Amino acid sequence: MTPIITAFERSPDRGAGLARDMRVRWALEEVGQPYEVRLLSFKAMKEPAHLALHPFGQIPTYEEGDLTLFESGAIVFHIAERHAGLLPEDENGRARAVAWMFAALNTVEPPIFDRNLAKILERDEPWYEQRLQALEESIRKRLDGLSGHLGNADWLDGAFSAGDLLMVSVLLRLKKSSDILDEYPNLSAYVARGEARAAYKRAFEAQLAVFTAASAD
Amino acid sequence: MTPIITAFERSPDRGAGLARDMRVRWALEEVGQPYEVRLLSFKAMKEPAHLALHPFGQIPTYEEGDLTLFESGAIVFHIAERHAGLLPEDENGRARAVAWMFAALNTVEPPIFDRNLAKILERDEPWYEQRLQALEESIRKRLDGLSGHLGNADWLDGAFSAGDLLMVSVLLRLKKSSDILDEYPNLSAYVARGEARAAYKRAFEAQLAVFTAASAD
Repeated sequence: MTPIITAFERSPDRGAGLARDMRVRWALEEVGQPYEVRLLSFKAMKEPAHLALHPFGQIPTYEEGDLTLFESGAIVFHIAERHAGLLPEDENGRARAVAWMFAALNTVEPPIFDRNLAKILERDEPWYEQRLQALEESIRKRLDGLSGHLGNADWLDGAFSAGDLLMVSVLLRLKKSSDILDEYPNLSAYVARGEARAAYKRAFEAQLAVFTAASAD
Repeated sequence: MTPIITAFERSPDRGAGLARDMRVRWALEEVGQPYEVRLLSFKAMKEPAHLALHPFGQIPTYEEGDLTLFESGAIVFHIAERHAGLLPEDENGRARAVAWMFAALNTVEPPIFDRNLAKILERDEPWYEQRLQALEESIRKRLDGLSGHLGNADWLDGAFSAGDLLMVSVLLRLKKSSDILDEYPNLSAYVARGEARAAYKRAFEAQLAVFTAASAD
């Protein structure tokens, strides 16, 4: 059964690949699972039909037969559990990959997301510079820990996993909006390795094509 | 093999049960798994021995034989996978419980955590009131969605699961620092149901005993 995911009809990032459907597309491409996409306007995202699938009125969702999921982390995990390629075979390695999934979304993403949000919502406020500085200090603390762990390795824990997929996705949000990542050469190279994967490229092109088509209308 | 978790030697919340070891203690109590606790000073958390277990120098960690984990979400999931009581038996229900785990940590917790942080770090700043208001608006948006989904049900998706355990833990952080939760009677009752569980009470008493003993020294 072909799963159906939801995505923005017109992504606010203008096809930069930062919307959260990108993570799910990437995971599906890594495991070679075809999928369909249902596009949603901002209005449709807040209507009852979509709220029944996603209590917080966001994208992406994932529908497969009688299963409906939301939260990109949970969707990526579901895909990783049911197909080979995104989680190690051994139990301990698998548990550690899950730890990196949570680390990406609960420890590394929040200050990066907040910085991008502040850049939009607070840029004309008198406190903007000071707030940005505080957020960047939080980001650097996280990157210090991540960079120290990664060292010279290619991926966070052995082979590429769903943990790397989410961590690279989160760091791309930083890369596309600041120079902070450049201060950490091993993390820059790590993100570049993620972007160089064939599955990443296919997913990126697919989401870009949606934005390009919407802009041509 | 008895797992060993780490916790604050002297919790900054003074035993209110908001430190993230509480979630792990609660999960272990729900499944009836005995555990040991290694207490850490703030200094020890940033030393190489602990950084080898937790790249971001935080608590909790989880050690069990040759497995070491960090990130409270991943540790709770590991416990839930290996013992009965925290995840439904059926595959779809299990995937949905995982979605609620990610929703608690990646969608509901960030604005609540940010508000508590702002109350400490930004309270003397000239923008404090405005910032607090913006954060509380974000929190209410999340609670609107959560409250709408929960309705009159006891738990988020059928029986109590690891998703509820993390969601109640996250909402407790709000309950203990503001009156916002009182605006949502069904969510207040939901949190109270979590706090009333015998496993929650045992976990709460255990973490409080650590703080009480440290204070008596």
